[in-house]
Amino acid sequence: MGAYTGLSAFPITPCDADGRLDAAHLRRLLAPLVEAGVDSIGLLGSTGTYAYLTREERRRTVTVAAEAVAGRVPLLVGIGALRTDEAIRLAQDAKAAGATAGLLAPVSYTPLTEDEVFAHFAAVAEEGGLPLVIYDNPATTHFRFTPSLIGRLARLPGVVAAKCPGPAPEEAAQTVAHLREAVPEGFPLGFSGDWNATEALIEGGDAWYSVAAGLFPEPCLAIVRAVQAGDAARARSLDGAMAPLWDLFKAHSSLRIVHALAGAIPPRPILPLPEEVRARALAAVTRLEGRAPAR
Amino acid sequence: MGAYTGLSAFPITPCDADGRLDAAHLRRLLAPLVEAGVDSIGLLGSTGTYAYLTREERRRTVTVAAEAVAGRVPLLVGIGALRTDEAIRLAQDAKAAGATAGLLAPVSYTPLTEDEVFAHFAAVAEEGGLPLVIYDNPATTHFRFTPSLIGRLARLPGVVAAKCPGPAPEEAAQTVAHLREAVPEGFPLGFSGDWNATEALIEGGDAWYSVAAGLFPEPCLAIVRAVQAGDAARARSLDGAMAPLWDLFKAHSSLRIVHALAGAIPPRPILPLPEEVRARALAAVTRLEGRAPAR
Repeated sequence: MGAYTGLSAFPITPCDADGRLDAAHLRRLLAPLVEAGVDSIGLLGSTGTYAYLTREERRRTVTVAAEAVAGRVPLLVGIGALRTDEAIRLAQDAKAAGATAGLLAPVSYTPLTEDEVFAHFAAVAEEGGLPLVIYDNPATTHFRFTPSLIGRLARLPGVVAAKCPGPAPEEAAQTVAHLREAVPEGFPLGFSGDWNATEALIEGGDAWYSVAAGLFPEPCLAIVRAVQAGDAARARSLDGAMAPLWDLFKAHSSLRIVHALAGAIPPRPILPLPEEVRARALAAVTRLEGRAPAR
Repeated sequence: MGAYTGLSAFPITPCDADGRLDAAHLRRLLAPLVEAGVDSIGLLGSTGTYAYLTREERRRTVTVAAEAVAGRVPLLVGIGALRTDEAIRLAQDAKAAGATAGLLAPVSYTPLTEDEVFAHFAAVAEEGGLPLVIYDNPATTHFRFTPSLIGRLARLPGVVAAKCPGPAPEEAAQTVAHLREAVPEGFPLGFSGDWNATEALIEGGDAWYSVAAGLFPEPCLAIVRAVQAGDAARARSLDGAMAPLWDLFKAHSSLRIVHALAGAIPPRPILPLPEEVRARALAAVTRLEGRAPAR
């Protein structure tokens, strides 16, 4: 498996209330991912609260993770920022700290045009010096990529893969086909939104960028390996077993749920979930693995 | 007029490509606002690109502006940030530099809940030490305030006014009435979105938070004074004369148009407008004032 296919596990970035990394906790989260054999690790993704951390803390997070992973698993690192010059600096930092590639989301405050997003990616790809994964997450960036823009970006030197929002199951075949038509042959197309990922994989997606896999790599790997073995029925059955977790992700956001499950606090203004919801989340996951997630 | 009624003029924050304030240019933009007699100045609003500037540069901007304005006009300062602790620091900085109040937008990456926004405002109001104006701009923050939440926030100690998106003219009466019912008697309700502001004022809004007034205070003041004098027909006629500018704001965003008109570059990834659009914008405003805007 390459760095942009299969299962990419997205851990949280455990921090204190001031946004300082808890390095020991991060190492405890990373060890089982390496051990389980995930195909890549997505550090500082949306769930890894990259948008809320300073450049210094992000650099420290990559450094700690690169040392912990020690080259055994490709490390994809969120380098998104509101300013183009800051995203370039973050790409350079991540490269220097040992990242395999950067995850670049078009973070926006003023809504951006297609031309602006294209120029942003071109500048970061050229000046950042790090291979880039297009990070399409309209729920957080509020920018909507068209397949045509994904296709243009996929032809930029240094743009190596795309992470797209998982389409609703009934639209998975068409969405994957439209994206596939837009990008060059062999360009890896992956999907996020855990509850929609299995169908996107079955319909030809190359990777699952997974929040759940950041805490529960084994059941997520089982789904991916079933799809890769051509056993869609088994993949769907395993995915069905995770439905209680997906329901909680949809109701409270995957970010809030996995922070609660990992015993970590999200950055304020995001509030910890009420104890009652956390208890339901713990109940939902006790059957997923023989052991509790790393705390 | 109080600090939260009448015309609030929102200038851009002229910066170089690295996001460093051009202090001389800012002074040239502020002088005509003071001279025209606007009721307040909205520094570091969305159009003032607060979201793209460092804490240090934002502090410098408030310091330069406070010195230039020298207490002659109330200074409302954007203190929004993704993190609650950072917004508190920005409020403290703005207060120390001489701001009258802070404009607090619920900047988001992970979509926020009502409870999270309420707790964010309560923390910044209490720990920031600066009176707060609720800054409701769903086009940039992607958070939608309900009248009920505005009403709850309006009762927090230290929350002194609200800046709401100007409703479509046909909904202005109802929107202003719903907000008025939600807030305590006398709580100032102002509106932004220049092309919708006149009707909101006519229907009882207390203030116009205006991007256009940051470059063209006189024609905007004439509209506000006409409404205050009870002459809705004259206000509508003056507003109609600005329609070519409103059309450009709607097509290209007010931020891009006023940067082009002021001869300033927006922060990348936002790109300068093509020369052809800039020429149309200049043509649209030559009739608004006898002189070109401060460059």
